[in-house]
Amino acid sequence: MDYQQLTDDLHIKFKDEIDKGKVATYIPELKKVNPNKFGINLYTVSCESYGAGDFQDKFSIQSISKVLALTYALKLVGNKLWKRVDVEPSGDPFNSLVQLEFEKGIPRNPLINSGALVVSDILISKLKNPKTEFLAFVRKLANNKQINYNKDVVASEKAYGYKNAAHVNLMKSFKNIKNNVDEVLDFYYHMCSIEMSCEELSRTYLLFANGGKLTYNDERIISRGRTKRINAIMQLCGLYDEAGEFSFRVGLPGKSGVGGGIVAIHPGKYCISVWSPKLNKKGNSFKGFQVLELFTTRTESSIF
Amino acid sequence: MDYQQLTDDLHIKFKDEIDKGKVATYIPELKKVNPNKFGINLYTVSCESYGAGDFQDKFSIQSISKVLALTYALKLVGNKLWKRVDVEPSGDPFNSLVQLEFEKGIPRNPLINSGALVVSDILISKLKNPKTEFLAFVRKLANNKQINYNKDVVASEKAYGYKNAAHVNLMKSFKNIKNNVDEVLDFYYHMCSIEMSCEELSRTYLLFANGGKLTYNDERIISRGRTKRINAIMQLCGLYDEAGEFSFRVGLPGKSGVGGGIVAIHPGKYCISVWSPKLNKKGNSFKGFQVLELFTTRTESSIF
Amino acid sequence: MDYQQLTDDLHIKFKDEIDKGKVATYIPELKKVNPNKFGINLYTVSCESYGAGDFQDKFSIQSISKVLALTYALKLVGNKLWKRVDVEPSGDPFNSLVQLEFEKGIPRNPLINSGALVVSDILISKLKNPKTEFLAFVRKLANNKQINYNKDVVASEKAYGYKNAAHVNLMKSFKNIKNNVDEVLDFYYHMCSIEMSCEELSRTYLLFANGGKLTYNDERIISRGRTKRINAIMQLCGLYDEAGEFSFRVGLPGKSGVGGGIVAIHPGKYCISVWSPKLNKKGNSFKGFQVLELFTTRTESSIF
Amino acid sequence: MDYQQLTDDLHIKFKDEIDKGKVATYIPELKKVNPNKFGINLYTVSCESYGAGDFQDKFSIQSISKVLALTYALKLVGNKLWKRVDVEPSGDPFNSLVQLEFEKGIPRNPLINSGALVVSDILISKLKNPKTEFLAFVRKLANNKQINYNKDVVASEKAYGYKNAAHVNLMKSFKNIKNNVDEVLDFYYHMCSIEMSCEELSRTYLLFANGGKLTYNDERIISRGRTKRINAIMQLCGLYDEAGEFSFRVGLPGKSGVGGGIVAIHPGKYCISVWSPKLNKKGNSFKGFQVLELFTTRTESSIF
Repeated sequence: MDYQQLTDDLHIKFKDEIDKGKVATYIPELKKVNPNKFGINLYTVSCESYGAGDFQDKFSIQSISKVLALTYALKLVGNKLWKRVDVEPSGDPFNSLVQLEFEKGIPRNPLINSGALVVSDILISKLKNPKTEFLAFVRKLANNKQINYNKDVVASEKAYGYKNAAHVNLMKSFKNIKNNVDEVLDFYYHMCSIEMSCEELSRTYLLFANGGKLTYNDERIISRGRTKRINAIMQLCGLYDEAGEFSFRVGLPGKSGVGGGIVAIHPGKYCISVWSPKLNKKGNSFKGFQVLELFTTRTESSIF
Repeated sequence: MDYQQLTDDLHIKFKDEIDKGKVATYIPELKKVNPNKFGINLYTVSCESYGAGDFQDKFSIQSISKVLALTYALKLVGNKLWKRVDVEPSGDPFNSLVQLEFEKGIPRNPLINSGALVVSDILISKLKNPKTEFLAFVRKLANNKQINYNKDVVASEKAYGYKNAAHVNLMKSFKNIKNNVDEVLDFYYHMCSIEMSCEELSRTYLLFANGGKLTYNDERIISRGRTKRINAIMQLCGLYDEAGEFSFRVGLPGKSGVGGGIVAIHPGKYCISVWSPKLNKKGNSFKGFQVLELFTTRTESSIF
Repeated sequence: MDYQQLTDDLHIKFKDEIDKGKVATYIPELKKVNPNKFGINLYTVSCESYGAGDFQDKFSIQSISKVLALTYALKLVGNKLWKRVDVEPSGDPFNSLVQLEFEKGIPRNPLINSGALVVSDILISKLKNPKTEFLAFVRKLANNKQINYNKDVVASEKAYGYKNAAHVNLMKSFKNIKNNVDEVLDFYYHMCSIEMSCEELSRTYLLFANGGKLTYNDERIISRGRTKRINAIMQLCGLYDEAGEFSFRVGLPGKSGVGGGIVAIHPGKYCISVWSPKLNKKGNSFKGFQVLELFTTRTESSIF
Repeated sequence: MDYQQLTDDLHIKFKDEIDKGKVATYIPELKKVNPNKFGINLYTVSCESYGAGDFQDKFSIQSISKVLALTYALKLVGNKLWKRVDVEPSGDPFNSLVQLEFEKGIPRNPLINSGALVVSDILISKLKNPKTEFLAFVRKLANNKQINYNKDVVASEKAYGYKNAAHVNLMKSFKNIKNNVDEVLDFYYHMCSIEMSCEELSRTYLLFANGGKLTYNDERIISRGRTKRINAIMQLCGLYDEAGEFSFRVGLPGKSGVGGGIVAIHPGKYCISVWSPKLNKKGNSFKGFQVLELFTTRTESSIF
């Protein structure tokens, strides 16, 4: 398989197609991005990188970073984490708060906002300097010291994040948040503000295609068993209310963010990232989803 | 009808009956109250007062004060208020947040927490010194300068009020809260912390039995039409998820609070208050409910 | 008060006003009605009748008859009925089935469809010839042997009544329906198909303004206490998701039907009926609601 | 890997372990089964069969057959099917009906009851003799003419299937059921009543491990692409409210039934079936789940 050729082909094919998506507007800072940005990058476990378009431009990875927070929290507290967060798909967004209320403050999974807020709470409890240490962890996975939070995005999210504040307060009322709610929100917004390029993203998430080991120095970050479980969670819960559609059409574990990025993992083989800021109605990158569908069709690389 | 005799009889009858209720525990400060306190007071529109038991002891009127906040807000902004709060019963508590989410941040009525938070927000927007001016308004209705907030109760509620914080943040996300969420919560907790005795309570709410005029000086506070509407709202929404049961068994508009008080209005005739801190499963005074039921049965004074 | 003058005035005032409502379409047979029909009738407890417009034309009273079924069932089984149906408002329609599921097959009140289906089930269990005996009961209250079921409406409802079938089957799964589901639905559709004119309707429901006694022969049908309770239930649950608005603006207990009828009761004084087939968005007669609001404003006859 | 040894080991290990599950009681006929039955069978795509315990005893496969109905319907109508059923996980059971109501009669996926009822409706529309032809289809996949419906189970389910009747009537009210509701329920209960042994089950579902072709004669039943999609749906929706847990712990697409069977697919490799009638709280075979977890751990054969 000539991955470079395929990556280029996909970029050319989708570059000029009409994009029916819309850039996310609820975080004002994200509206500033150029809506026509479009990058693709594939990283194989043998560390070959194939990119096309704007694959080296940084963007806000947003919810994609929830997988990294989960990984770090699992490393720190192990399976105790599952007492405070479940591993089931969340169904759909219309009842996110009622579900949380019905299930007494236990989020459905660690990749929805409420779940990631609990994961943030765990990291705060375990780390001395949560924001610094989390960033160091991400940089290590990325093998890149240039990964940073974007303070403008943090400020922008805080100023409009009333729904997240509702979730964290509701969970606090059920005693499933241990730290101060403002501190939890601050950490959470920092985590979501991390910026990476497609290439950095693929490289960082290669860990999950590589059984939990860093490819660049063979260091084990998490066990093979936990890696599989994180992939299973991405498969079931990684694309909001479109996880089924993504499994159905793409057939790989993945995670999306409102910044327009999507990352997908083929265990044992590769990690692929796409970035295109306009989102479909379910909040996932309109083009990104299509690129990945065609990619797995062409490469016949679904896990199913 | 010899009201004094009846009031005494009811007090004697229920004083030593087994109270299956439980004192509210979610506001620590409220747990300090003597659970055996029990008072009854009836105030007629001709300003005769009949009391029994602890009817002159002050207690935390809690949600009962929501009716006063609503009255003041209606006086200040008129029917515009109904664009931000509905007048329908809330169904049941299990879905309070989903309902608010489904209905885009518009609370079902002004007597549930979310509705009273919007009313608080309106008062903050309209008043220069909201807490001072609201207290002055209540004192005027009560014809009593000794009515006060209880700062310990305010502090106690704030420290545990995460669910209210969830509601106010959710409404803020729908832009139905205009002021700072902490300021809204601060006002709301002050409003709920007002203390009155049964006698003061009856006297204050006599306004709603008297067509909107103060009995002691004949001053009109709100129009006759609005008074009827406030009574209608109490009838449908005044006793949480037991409004139907209360209408069914007592047959008068009323409002309860977790401090164990209940006030009921017979338009054109009287206002009656009962206080007994132990609550039934729906959060209403166990004895208070029964006293009122027997009272209206004996006096045949249902509005229906 | 010159009731005839007022009734005529209201008829004239509203006759030519633009009617923003729409005739119900989900029961095909009901679409055949002339949408411009408009009648008003007031019946006092002293048996004076004041009518205007089409007040002697028969129409399908639909859900209004649920009050009569409830009355009959209460007469037959007494308070045991409340073990199978609650007396609380239902909140709103979007969650009717989930509420029933959440509350294990116990309907919120006897005036929503699920509650009336349970009441139907009770009548079937208690009566030898349920449909015949129920009709006889209604004719007695109406003092009129010309009251009948409309078989075409029954057939039309059956052919489209899948949602009612869903409700009754769900309750059967919770064992809150004792008889065969088809039999229950058959009785229910007959009950809803009863036809009356405004005048017949007011006359029949005068029972609830007259403390439970027939006005024409002074026979007691139900106790004064139960009459009050039925009125209380109408107040809280009689106008679907607009019960609050109706209490707020009209201020009387009432019941509406999708045929465009609304009946309202002033305890001790009168019963008033309005018929105009076009319905507002909540399913209540658009003009009927407004006529009643203006009527109680003019007569200052709210119960609050 | 010595699969026979492993299968035997797992059978011995779990045979005498305490089974905390309970046999399903809501279908009376299913209660008659011996609760200690326990069988395991693995079938590889190269047609080797490894069995242990009661792997040749027939049992009621129940919901497992929904996958076969889906396969047949996809074969007959293709992607048009997805206009009437979605492919998203259903979240949790507490809101199955409200979700269906909220989403206007479109079931979340074809493996929950409502979805399988729509699939049944499609088969009825497309087949002349639906029950006969569906059975013939199953026998062909199984390469076995001894596969049959169990009429006693059909009768038993019908007599207690009020909740399914509620679902199908609700969908009919949204026009997402085209045929007579009783006919749809009759087909659905037949489909669920199919009996197979573990060995027959593995053999039948080998189709999904073999890219859509029958192993015994290489005939293509469905395309490779559709096979992947069916596997993806099983992964996300195959174990009721425990799909996440199953993905997390077992890591293979699978489907369970209340008869105590679970089948799991490793694409390209094998199909494994376990049968043990006692169910955990989520309705999945208590032992079956554990056997599969240990099996994939020992064989390191998760797809993730």
